[in-house]
Amino acid sequence: MSIPAHMKALLLVNDGYASERADARLEAMAPYVRASEIEVPSPGPSQVLIKVSLASINPSDVMFLKGLYGQPRRQGQPAGFEGVGVIAVAGENAGAHLKVGQRVAFATGLSGWGSWADYAVAEGGSCIPIIEGVRDEDAAAMIVNPLTALAMFGIVKEEGEKSFILTAGASQLCKLMMGVARDEGYRPIAIVRRDDQKELLAKAGAAHVLNASSSGFAEELKGVLKAEQPRIFLDAVTGPLAGEIFAAMPKRARWIVYGRLDTDATPIPEPGQLIFMHKRIEGFWLSEWMRNTPPEQKIATIREAQMRFKDGRWSTDVNAVVPLADAIDKVPEELARPNGKVFIAP
Amino acid sequence: MSIPAHMKALLLVNDGYASERADARLEAMAPYVRASEIEVPSPGPSQVLIKVSLASINPSDVMFLKGLYGQPRRQGQPAGFEGVGVIAVAGENAGAHLKVGQRVAFATGLSGWGSWADYAVAEGGSCIPIIEGVRDEDAAAMIVNPLTALAMFGIVKEEGEKSFILTAGASQLCKLMMGVARDEGYRPIAIVRRDDQKELLAKAGAAHVLNASSSGFAEELKGVLKAEQPRIFLDAVTGPLAGEIFAAMPKRARWIVYGRLDTDATPIPEPGQLIFMHKRIEGFWLSEWMRNTPPEQKIATIREAQMRFKDGRWSTDVNAVVPLADAIDKVPEELARPNGKVFIAP
Repeated sequence: MSIPAHMKALLLVNDGYASERADARLEAMAPYVRASEIEVPSPGPSQVLIKVSLASINPSDVMFLKGLYGQPRRQGQPAGFEGVGVIAVAGENAGAHLKVGQRVAFATGLSGWGSWADYAVAEGGSCIPIIEGVRDEDAAAMIVNPLTALAMFGIVKEEGEKSFILTAGASQLCKLMMGVARDEGYRPIAIVRRDDQKELLAKAGAAHVLNASSSGFAEELKGVLKAEQPRIFLDAVTGPLAGEIFAAMPKRARWIVYGRLDTDATPIPEPGQLIFMHKRIEGFWLSEWMRNTPPEQKIATIREAQMRFKDGRWSTDVNAVVPLADAIDKVPEELARPNGKVFIAP
Repeated sequence: MSIPAHMKALLLVNDGYASERADARLEAMAPYVRASEIEVPSPGPSQVLIKVSLASINPSDVMFLKGLYGQPRRQGQPAGFEGVGVIAVAGENAGAHLKVGQRVAFATGLSGWGSWADYAVAEGGSCIPIIEGVRDEDAAAMIVNPLTALAMFGIVKEEGEKSFILTAGASQLCKLMMGVARDEGYRPIAIVRRDDQKELLAKAGAAHVLNASSSGFAEELKGVLKAEQPRIFLDAVTGPLAGEIFAAMPKRARWIVYGRLDTDATPIPEPGQLIFMHKRIEGFWLSEWMRNTPPEQKIATIREAQMRFKDGRWSTDVNAVVPLADAIDKVPEELARPNGKVFIAP
C-alpha cells in the first residue's frame, strides 16, 4: 500500500480543559477544530497506521472537543475517538492478527491520534478485525457505543435484578443496550426529555419510558421503582436529575456514571443513604473495562457485537455521512437532528 | 436478680425525620427527649434485658435525636445507641454466652430500645461480654467508636496504601483509629477545623493535621496528597469540604461516608473523575459490617478493642458523667466542651 507524505485532518484548536462550564451541544466546529494538511504520522511498535474509511462522531467526541471530557486536549492533534479503516502499516508488536490490508474498527483514546483524518494511529489492542458482512457504518461505531452497551449490560446481569435504569435513553448506546436486554428478559427503565421519544424507545426494548420534563415525573418514577426494584442506574447525564433518580432508588442501588451530558453541579441528595441503604456511586470507562476484563470475555463480547450487526438484530441509524472537507461547515447542523449518528468520510 | 415494674428513661419526643435541615450541635435536650417513668420492657426470645451501668452519648445519638440520622425516630421509646450493664433477663435464643449477671457492652440500633434508661433491651448479637480489667467508661463506649474505628482501619489495610484521610479528625473515633494506625506503620492525614487540635492529634497518631478553616488549606492539602497518595477517605462530615477533599485525591480514591455532621448539600465536584480516575463513593455502617463479617474476624476485632482498653493503649477521654436525673439540664453544656466523651449514669 503506498502511503502519501501528507494528509488532511481536523486538528484540535485548544489545549487542556475548558476554563468555563458549557453545555454538551456542538454549536459550531470552528472554535474547536480546524481543517489542515499535516504529515502522515508514523505508528510506534505497538501501534498501527489506518487508512480511515469512515469516522464516527459520539457525544464523548463533542465533550472532548469542548474540553469537558475529563481528559486533556492536545492542540494540533487530530480529533475523533473511533472509526473503521484498513491497516496501512503495522508496528512489529501491534499483534499478529493485525496485517496490512485488514479492515479494523479502532479507537484512539490511548494513542491520542484521532480518526477525523485520512490516516489515524491506534494501539494494536484498540483494534478489532471486522468480519465480512458488517457495514462500514456499523464498524465505524462498533467500539464506543456497542461495546460499552454490552459491557455495562454485563454489570446488570452480574447484579441479578431484571430491571435497571438508563438516562439519555434515546441515545444510540441505550437503544443498543435495551435491545439486548429485552432479548434476555430484562426490563430497562429509560429516562428521556421528550414525549415523542416514548414510542421509539418502547420499540427499542424499554419496559418503561419516563419523561423527566413532565410534571408528574417524580410520582411516576416512584411507582415504577417500587414495582421494578432496579439496583443499577447507568447514567450518561449526571447533574440534579441523576441525583434525584439515585435518591429515589431502593437499597443497595449503584449509580454508575459513564457520561456527563449535564455539566451542572451534581449533588448527592441524601448522603445518609450511602451509610444506611448501602448505596454507592462509581464510574464506567470502556478503556478501563478493556484493560481489566479477561481475554475470553472480551473476545466473546466483541464477537457478539459483530454478529448482532451482521445478522441485523442491531443496525446503526445513520443521520448523515459528511465528507471531511465539509465537516467544519456541516457537522453541527447534522448533529442537531435527533435519533441517528453522524459520520465523517475522509 | 429482682427487677422492678417501672423505671426511669429519657424518651424520644418526635417521630420520623426532621422536616428541616439543622446542624449537628445539641442546643438543648427538651425538644428531643423527656424524662419519664415507664414499665420495664420484656426482652424477646433473641434479646436480653440489661441493667444499665453507664450509657454513652455519641455524635450519632445527637443526629438521631434531631431526626438527621437516616433512621426514623419512634416517639415514646428510650434514646441511646450504646452502653454497658449487667444482664438481668436473657431470652432463650439470645446466645449461650449471655447469662444473667454477665457484664456486657451493648448496642440498641437493632432493638430500638435505648440505653438512656435504668434498663435497656438489646439483641443478643449486639452484646459483647466484657473481660475483667476494662473500665465501665471504656466498655460503655466500646461498640460505636472502637469497633467502627477497627473495622474501617481494616478497609485501609485491605486497600494497601499506608496513608489515608480522616475528617472530624479530633473525634474519639478518629483518635482511636490513628493510634492503631501509627502502631502498624500507617500515616493518617487528619482534617480538623481549629489549630489548637493540631498538637493533640499529632500525639494521637496523625502524620499530618490540616486545618480546613485556614486560608492555605487547598494548597497544603494538595502538597500532602501528592506526597502521601492516600486512596481511602473516611468521612464523618460530608458537605462541600468532603467533596473538595475527594476531588483533590489521586486515582482510584474511595470516599467512604460514615457520618453526616455537615448537613449542607454534598456535591460531587468532578463527576468525570468517577469515569476516568475510577474513583468511587460508598458508605460504612457498623451494623452492616457486623452482619457481613466472618465470625472469626469479628471476634478478633472485638478482642483487640478490649485488650487495647485493658492494657491502656486505648483510654476513653471522659468529659463528664451526668446522672440520668440531671441529663435534660446538663448534657448540652457538657457536650459542647471539645475532646472528650459525655456519659449518662442511671
